[in-house]
Amino acid sequence: MGELDLIASFEELLEARGDRLVRGPGDDASVVRARGFAVTSIDAVTDGTHFTLATHTPADVGHKALATALSDLAAMGADAGEPPVALALPRGFDTGAARELVAGMEELAGRHGVTIAGGDVITAASLTVTVCVTGWVDDDGLLVGRDGAQPGDELWVTGALGGSAAGLLVLQEKVPSAELAAELAARHRRPEPQLAAGAALAGAGASAMIDVSDGLARDARHIAERSGCRIVVELEQLPIARGVADVAEAAGLDPIQLAAGAGDDYELLLTAPPDRAPELERAAARADVALTRLGRAEAGTGIVLRTVAGGTVDLVGYEHQ
Amino acid sequence: MGELDLIASFEELLEARGDRLVRGPGDDASVVRARGFAVTSIDAVTDGTHFTLATHTPADVGHKALATALSDLAAMGADAGEPPVALALPRGFDTGAARELVAGMEELAGRHGVTIAGGDVITAASLTVTVCVTGWVDDDGLLVGRDGAQPGDELWVTGALGGSAAGLLVLQEKVPSAELAAELAARHRRPEPQLAAGAALAGAGASAMIDVSDGLARDARHIAERSGCRIVVELEQLPIARGVADVAEAAGLDPIQLAAGAGDDYELLLTAPPDRAPELERAAARADVALTRLGRAEAGTGIVLRTVAGGTVDLVGYEHQ
Repeated sequence: MGELDLIASFEELLEARGDRLVRGPGDDASVVRARGFAVTSIDAVTDGTHFTLATHTPADVGHKALATALSDLAAMGADAGEPPVALALPRGFDTGAARELVAGMEELAGRHGVTIAGGDVITAASLTVTVCVTGWVDDDGLLVGRDGAQPGDELWVTGALGGSAAGLLVLQEKVPSAELAAELAARHRRPEPQLAAGAALAGAGASAMIDVSDGLARDARHIAERSGCRIVVELEQLPIARGVADVAEAAGLDPIQLAAGAGDDYELLLTAPPDRAPELERAAARADVALTRLGRAEAGTGIVLRTVAGGTVDLVGYEHQ
Repeated sequence: MGELDLIASFEELLEARGDRLVRGPGDDASVVRARGFAVTSIDAVTDGTHFTLATHTPADVGHKALATALSDLAAMGADAGEPPVALALPRGFDTGAARELVAGMEELAGRHGVTIAGGDVITAASLTVTVCVTGWVDDDGLLVGRDGAQPGDELWVTGALGGSAAGLLVLQEKVPSAELAAELAARHRRPEPQLAAGAALAGAGASAMIDVSDGLARDARHIAERSGCRIVVELEQLPIARGVADVAEAAGLDPIQLAAGAGDDYELLLTAPPDRAPELERAAARADVALTRLGRAEAGTGIVLRTVAGGTVDLVGYEHQ
């Protein structure tokens, strides 16, 4: 099947949602009715770096590519829009597998009211999926960057951490059978972008926000650097996903290494003034996500990972590459 | 140099232009003040398919990636906006070369008032540059798609054709020294997106428009298919770039094979009602591009490549892959 036939076959799988799309796939460019501000991020995932086809189905790859891109919009508090997608397929990549990949992406798009607006298909040395996610907000004052944390703010995180890293250990067969193996593996292969939570928490007064893709420690550092303050994380407060402790023990690791050092959980890490706590908790409840207070912003620079006992945790070797 | 340091080093090379960019690189997403309609296209170029590092400098690659993406906006008649860029670098790719690539892209961006708004850098099997070009228009009625050609419309093309294909033959050393070798090679390595011409021709009444990336014959077919009409091309009218005839002769080819069968010239192919001819010609003169009438749209389907003598030209083997 040639490139044009393949694109036509993908178009059959895609549905336009909402009323913003004026001109969809099939022309030189797609056309979308804009709102006040466009929020845009581009993310690429490639075989061997962000996934392997040994541990991911094509549908997992499609899901992951779109999910990790949408997660950036969640972290800004923006509504998801109409991402175009570039698909680099290795020579001879199975057409059915390529359709499964697009279908996996479309299934996630459907759940979030997102329209995949055209794209590009090329032949390349390995499988790479690039999603340019676009989103919209009427007032840019509603967006939350990495740069708004103030000394005195509290630090919060949605959901639970470490599940993706534990799932990867399971998929790589680095631990003997784990009780929650399937749940953890799914957590790694099919991360869920926290779009509803991101918008709700932005509206509730978050001062800085980032998605936990590089790992809690690194992402806290991004907030600290961009905001010009110090972020203190109380490691005992870390919400650790269920099943992670078992996997960590089997692998000879501390669960905190997986929850704070490894990445790809795609939860949201945020700061807010202490008086916003009740509003944040109500917003999280409305979005049906757990919300845990796990530290604060202080005057200073860098990050501090603190244990009650005053101990330190070695994250080296578990920081996301 | 790690990925984050590399991104920081790229950010130093990039300049924000105009007043639309509200939040640039360094956050989860860039934020841009919108106009009425967003016009978006994603384009990827990869080593071995769209260029080779044997014939292209890193700066050529950066230029080409952005130019081919911007060309899609030119073909819609949209103003260029703030494209994000995803850079997939092979392991061990030289940092200086990566900076040259970004600088080559930035140089073109500067000439067209475009702001490169952040991006993603990953390690992959081979060099791939993906540009998600965004553009803006206040009124979507001003955009020109591939689907607006009507029987009776005339067919026009900007500039001259075949230069890129002849340049590739020169770069591949498939012809002995050609007189205009350097000019033709530059034409292949550094195509120029016809943004000013596209906007001017859209305003002058073009009914359908496409950029000549797949080759004139194929791109005429795209217009025919999307518009539901037949496109007739009078091959004797083809504007052939200077130097192409020499290279074609040396390679044992007909110049028309290079001008109509090969692609990557990034000129604009358009249709318009005959009474718009004077306005189109004035628009082209204002944008400082040649404009040649080379056929028409008729009732029917498909394309006809016609010679005065009634002969046919074999384009097989020269259609763009």
